[in-house]
Amino acid sequence: MKDTFGIRSLGPCRVESPLDCRFFVDDDGRVLLDATLAACRDCDGKPVALEQAGPRRRIFFEPRSVRAAVVTCGGLCPGLNDVIRALTMVLWHRYGARSIMGLRYGYEGLIARLGHEPIPLNPDVVADIHKHGGTILGSSRGHQDMGEMVAFLAQNRINVLFAIGGDGTQHGALEIARERERRNLDIAVVGIPKTIDNDISYTQRTFGFETAVAISQIPIASAHMESKGARNGVGLVKLMGRDCGFVAAYATLASSDVNLVLIPEVPFRLEKVMAFLESRLQRKSHAVIVVAEGAGQDLVPVEGADASGNKKLGDIGVFLKKAITEHFSKIRMPATVRYIDPSYMIRSAPANADDSVFCFQLAEKAVHAAMAGRTGLVVGIWNDHFVHVPMEKAIESRKKIDPTGALWQSVLDNTGQPANLM
Amino acid sequence: MKDTFGIRSLGPCRVESPLDCRFFVDDDGRVLLDATLAACRDCDGKPVALEQAGPRRRIFFEPRSVRAAVVTCGGLCPGLNDVIRALTMVLWHRYGARSIMGLRYGYEGLIARLGHEPIPLNPDVVADIHKHGGTILGSSRGHQDMGEMVAFLAQNRINVLFAIGGDGTQHGALEIARERERRNLDIAVVGIPKTIDNDISYTQRTFGFETAVAISQIPIASAHMESKGARNGVGLVKLMGRDCGFVAAYATLASSDVNLVLIPEVPFRLEKVMAFLESRLQRKSHAVIVVAEGAGQDLVPVEGADASGNKKLGDIGVFLKKAITEHFSKIRMPATVRYIDPSYMIRSAPANADDSVFCFQLAEKAVHAAMAGRTGLVVGIWNDHFVHVPMEKAIESRKKIDPTGALWQSVLDNTGQPANLM
Amino acid sequence: MKDTFGIRSLGPCRVESPLDCRFFVDDDGRVLLDATLAACRDCDGKPVALEQAGPRRRIFFEPRSVRAAVVTCGGLCPGLNDVIRALTMVLWHRYGARSIMGLRYGYEGLIARLGHEPIPLNPDVVADIHKHGGTILGSSRGHQDMGEMVAFLAQNRINVLFAIGGDGTQHGALEIARERERRNLDIAVVGIPKTIDNDISYTQRTFGFETAVAISQIPIASAHMESKGARNGVGLVKLMGRDCGFVAAYATLASSDVNLVLIPEVPFRLEKVMAFLESRLQRKSHAVIVVAEGAGQDLVPVEGADASGNKKLGDIGVFLKKAITEHFSKIRMPATVRYIDPSYMIRSAPANADDSVFCFQLAEKAVHAAMAGRTGLVVGIWNDHFVHVPMEKAIESRKKIDPTGALWQSVLDNTGQPANLM
Amino acid sequence: MKDTFGIRSLGPCRVESPLDCRFFVDDDGRVLLDATLAACRDCDGKPVALEQAGPRRRIFFEPRSVRAAVVTCGGLCPGLNDVIRALTMVLWHRYGARSIMGLRYGYEGLIARLGHEPIPLNPDVVADIHKHGGTILGSSRGHQDMGEMVAFLAQNRINVLFAIGGDGTQHGALEIARERERRNLDIAVVGIPKTIDNDISYTQRTFGFETAVAISQIPIASAHMESKGARNGVGLVKLMGRDCGFVAAYATLASSDVNLVLIPEVPFRLEKVMAFLESRLQRKSHAVIVVAEGAGQDLVPVEGADASGNKKLGDIGVFLKKAITEHFSKIRMPATVRYIDPSYMIRSAPANADDSVFCFQLAEKAVHAAMAGRTGLVVGIWNDHFVHVPMEKAIESRKKIDPTGALWQSVLDNTGQPANLM
Repeated sequence: MKDTFGIRSLGPCRVESPLDCRFFVDDDGRVLLDATLAACRDCDGKPVALEQAGPRRRIFFEPRSVRAAVVTCGGLCPGLNDVIRALTMVLWHRYGARSIMGLRYGYEGLIARLGHEPIPLNPDVVADIHKHGGTILGSSRGHQDMGEMVAFLAQNRINVLFAIGGDGTQHGALEIARERERRNLDIAVVGIPKTIDNDISYTQRTFGFETAVAISQIPIASAHMESKGARNGVGLVKLMGRDCGFVAAYATLASSDVNLVLIPEVPFRLEKVMAFLESRLQRKSHAVIVVAEGAGQDLVPVEGADASGNKKLGDIGVFLKKAITEHFSKIRMPATVRYIDPSYMIRSAPANADDSVFCFQLAEKAVHAAMAGRTGLVVGIWNDHFVHVPMEKAIESRKKIDPTGALWQSVLDNTGQPANLM
Repeated sequence: MKDTFGIRSLGPCRVESPLDCRFFVDDDGRVLLDATLAACRDCDGKPVALEQAGPRRRIFFEPRSVRAAVVTCGGLCPGLNDVIRALTMVLWHRYGARSIMGLRYGYEGLIARLGHEPIPLNPDVVADIHKHGGTILGSSRGHQDMGEMVAFLAQNRINVLFAIGGDGTQHGALEIARERERRNLDIAVVGIPKTIDNDISYTQRTFGFETAVAISQIPIASAHMESKGARNGVGLVKLMGRDCGFVAAYATLASSDVNLVLIPEVPFRLEKVMAFLESRLQRKSHAVIVVAEGAGQDLVPVEGADASGNKKLGDIGVFLKKAITEHFSKIRMPATVRYIDPSYMIRSAPANADDSVFCFQLAEKAVHAAMAGRTGLVVGIWNDHFVHVPMEKAIESRKKIDPTGALWQSVLDNTGQPANLM
Repeated sequence: MKDTFGIRSLGPCRVESPLDCRFFVDDDGRVLLDATLAACRDCDGKPVALEQAGPRRRIFFEPRSVRAAVVTCGGLCPGLNDVIRALTMVLWHRYGARSIMGLRYGYEGLIARLGHEPIPLNPDVVADIHKHGGTILGSSRGHQDMGEMVAFLAQNRINVLFAIGGDGTQHGALEIARERERRNLDIAVVGIPKTIDNDISYTQRTFGFETAVAISQIPIASAHMESKGARNGVGLVKLMGRDCGFVAAYATLASSDVNLVLIPEVPFRLEKVMAFLESRLQRKSHAVIVVAEGAGQDLVPVEGADASGNKKLGDIGVFLKKAITEHFSKIRMPATVRYIDPSYMIRSAPANADDSVFCFQLAEKAVHAAMAGRTGLVVGIWNDHFVHVPMEKAIESRKKIDPTGALWQSVLDNTGQPANLM
Repeated sequence: MKDTFGIRSLGPCRVESPLDCRFFVDDDGRVLLDATLAACRDCDGKPVALEQAGPRRRIFFEPRSVRAAVVTCGGLCPGLNDVIRALTMVLWHRYGARSIMGLRYGYEGLIARLGHEPIPLNPDVVADIHKHGGTILGSSRGHQDMGEMVAFLAQNRINVLFAIGGDGTQHGALEIARERERRNLDIAVVGIPKTIDNDISYTQRTFGFETAVAISQIPIASAHMESKGARNGVGLVKLMGRDCGFVAAYATLASSDVNLVLIPEVPFRLEKVMAFLESRLQRKSHAVIVVAEGAGQDLVPVEGADASGNKKLGDIGVFLKKAITEHFSKIRMPATVRYIDPSYMIRSAPANADDSVFCFQLAEKAVHAAMAGRTGLVVGIWNDHFVHVPMEKAIESRKKIDPTGALWQSVLDNTGQPANLM
């Protein structure tokens, strides 16, 4: 099983790193996948481990020969500009690279015929971009033709590609890395995983997630005030989380004003939700509900997928608003439902302080990995250490909340909601 | 014409005010309706003027005999708790009143059979409420039976009623004031106008408005980032403003990132909007639009009214989102529209600093007016002086943006949008 | 007396304005200095009035001939970049001016031998500057040689100068305007008054003031928390206000957590302050004090002046911290004083929404005034109308809080502090 | 070595936990101290490990017999109220405890003769306290008499004590735990480590730290604006960090506007700092410096200690301000130094979202530990797992930044400052 976490390499590292030697990471450095005593004991001395991230003493690329490119894909996420800025600063100041281009509008930027001129990146251009949300490069969803993309890289003699995006993006990046391998091109493809949902495997946290939780406090506080401002007011907030409830769960723990959280990992029946709401309103006259966008999809079935290939979701927020209103109307209990969908305001926010730090660290590690000729990997953090994760592993499944784990227990403690809504 | 601005009074003021004599306002103090030189010259020495607000040397009520009640009606608005708090503090500490009750859920709180127990208000109860949005009293829309309401006031021996609400509320308060007159009860009815739209006549500003403009910067910044994050991105934000564009206009001036504002006072044709958008996207690849909820109602006709009697509005935001998407699809120009409706997050926010100051000042003036036996008035600010405005005048029409005035000129200067979209 | 409010002009206006004719302001428009009925009645038909600001039908400068310069002087103030941006945008887009230069580091920027290269200003350069505090032009204090400054203007053929600064700056601008007159040069000198203290005469508000009040809430909340976090905790905050207490007073009203405000306009004796504090701590175990930097200067006498010619102030904050600590030590009452001096954090903040709007409006009016050949004036707002104020009048004295007026009454109502501390 | 991480226990757990059985943590659960592969391999199957935190199937106390007390000690720190609230909520709702008292003003609250009445804690009292900074219990520094404290616990029949504080506090708590042992009393003493400096050993993060980093962005942005607002402006910010530079380092990484960070772990010579500054100002005309309060103490030697026993620090911020000003005056290079000391504003802030989540989780784990009869421990997080750390280990030394580690490397990458300033 260990081998599956092995990292691809462009070849032997023959160049001396220009960096301060005090900081080099040992090529053998590995971080245990499972940091518990039991795992260490039961592994026959062969525990599964992830390659440690960081600068290497010997690197693959002669720094001045580097021609790097950066691409941002998929929906907006706090911290995109922080990552773009840090990649540029570290490449430029630490390694002395002088050719860095920002590709426009996601993978469209690798399709020559679309004519999106790349933005040359340097310290002046990126100086203040991290103060603003969004991405200065623009983004887009969806795949592009592999042949055209690799042709673009070859024509522009790009030998380092940083792909900032979610699992669709990393899937595309992996394809490029494989194509590169087939054609035997020296192109390092390094991913920085971007998922505001925080559902990439083998990384305990993704950038933008903490900011999303922080900004979520605004609509939750609004829902709280609205719910208390009317007799039997119900404040309903839909948050990110297609397949997992991390944003919903953390936002709830941060607020402590939420009375019910619904997430994709924990199924529920509508009658149980209504029964809980009735009793809550009878006792307290107001209630706040947070629902992850991917929760309760059995109630709102839809067909199809978006340009990124993500399965389309039924709108559980609108559904619940209507269902609750109708229920209380039917039982002749006056109730007022206020529904808030803050997603654009969350995902377009600038990164908060902690995410800015994290983005800088991730970007540094990504640059170190690429300079050392590592490819087909994403940088992540696991058991509180920065690591390299093979792209295949990062996208093989999605991280989810364990309904029997400590996080969900904290949520139940915090909200007082029933553990079982089925 | 002057008489129409005359303020009703419960009777002669025979009680010495307990306040510091340095601060008394002259009973004859009046503020000109029109502060220009031309108006002063052309009035034959009889300019129209409003009664100045402030503490009087002699007051109507013996302070310890005061039994005050406070009611908040209609939708949430930043500053409601500031006003409740300040009314309580000034009544309690300055005048020594000891009976102040907070009525629950708007005018429902004056309907005994609904059983909403009032909240006794005192400095401890209200100490920190201004730090939070919403209203600790709760609110509701709509009228209640006049007979029941006046009976409630009589039964509870309430002699001072503060009505915090919009023109529906002030209309109700005026009815109570008139009913009081008919029955010859000594009840002072004083309104604090609440309209986040800022459209009450004869007051240059209403509380909550500045906060609304401030919070609007968040969705506008989001729309800006979203619009730049996609090729030909269009960020669309719907803001408050049923009959007027004050929030939309000020939010635009504050942001300086908006390219087009649509308001109820300035009609537009859809083709002109699309033509402007096309040219904008061709030049800049992104655009930000702000639309007041009451704009373009000819495009989205609906029937009916809400519980407050406000005419129902068609959803111009959803309409525009669809129309723009379809238009660019039709002309085969790729474009991505992101639509944000932030209204609950705006109206439930706590008051910002400047609104908190204003709320305190308004509440003080309302208490002074009531103690002096003034009734059937709202407190306002005009030509930068606090004044008493007869309820009839305050609600006789709505304040609007003059499309030939300085404010709209500033908006056109700021956005660069065409003056004429018809 | 009226004449003294007359505005200088470079000469007759012979050029048609390129602006939309709907918005022109009548050259005869005047705003009453005193908007009360009594003033209007008692003026014999000749009330004192200020010239109304706004665009004129006929202007002095042919727009393409305009060579404008902008200078920012004195300490930082929220909104400087907003004003620079708006001056540039309105000159460029509305009037078609194409030569606009930003002078560096205050009046130093007009001294050729110092070698500060001006920054060319255009819509691209200023696009996002209003999102950040400070001034992109830099600033400095103090006067420079008049001959050198006028020579610089002549050499660079500058015919419109916008001076953004306090009364020292406007005094300098007035000197330039007078020198211009003597030399018969066609240079319009227009001031935008900048005083975070809000003490410029004949303008009800200056830009940056509201933001200062808003940001002051942070240290006051800190002082409040610190005071409650210790037995007999005393939180002490020093705020802006060399000669007036506007920031201190408004910040107090906005917070409603302050128990004592000390301002320059209201003298106090230390014993009275200590007696009030003792009784407050005995009752409540904590207290919050706000002191304006210019308060109690009789207690902390110093000599000298800064580079701007402002009298040096003794540090009343540090003095009070020490005095209170010593007093409670002497009377053996345990007390903990936490002192906060937040001034740099306040003055360097970006403008809040309401100030951004105001900055835009002021800058527009300044451009209109200059284009119409008005000179030796500052733009202001009075009785809620934008006006032109002759520089002599703006700087002849400083606006102060009236200790017998409504504002101070509100403060006493809000804090519960004794009216008399002497 | 492993034994030293063993956790004391009051005795065997004979009570069934009332909690949901799905969430129980195995009593044998351990988290590796070192999560690298090398450590796991080289430990002979006996790696050092920490006890895992979480709810146990069998607990020590019969819930209704619990009489809990909470005490907050030392300086303010964001999140204190979050912890107080969560302890109360989890004790009350999950375990059914009904006797919870908040002791006033730190360990003074355990000294009966001081007469500080405890505050009874329940869900109503703590409902909204997490929205505000500070601590509702008040705090104090310093030790109190052990005999008096244990007598207080005995008299009030307190059997669970939660001590929220830094290493002085945990040292005191450990003494209480030992005294309890000697007297054979059934009192569980559980610490929640509170250090805004983030320097408690064996916990990767302490609550309030992230908030401190976040709030630090305000003064750093101010320093940045001030530095750019003057010719050769130098913005200087002093941040928390008596013995370590974590706040300074993370705040710098978050801001990316800092040019030089000085921390206790990395010594420097003044000449080197000045040389760096000179070259920076010559190139860029402005500079931002962040200094941790404990940096450069060889330059500002002082004697003595505060009430908590912390060694007094010389004021390196004031020293540097003076030294820089004098240096540039001496070399006749104009420079303006703006110094900001924001510490009270940082430590009194409410917790940000991520810290609020963390506080809730820590408090939960603390309650679980106490209910299971664990004592003499603090709760922490290590390798991303919540753990129990014996108080002796937590306070035996302080966590510091490794000047050859990845964090300091990131800082050097971010600021561009020289690695060696000696």
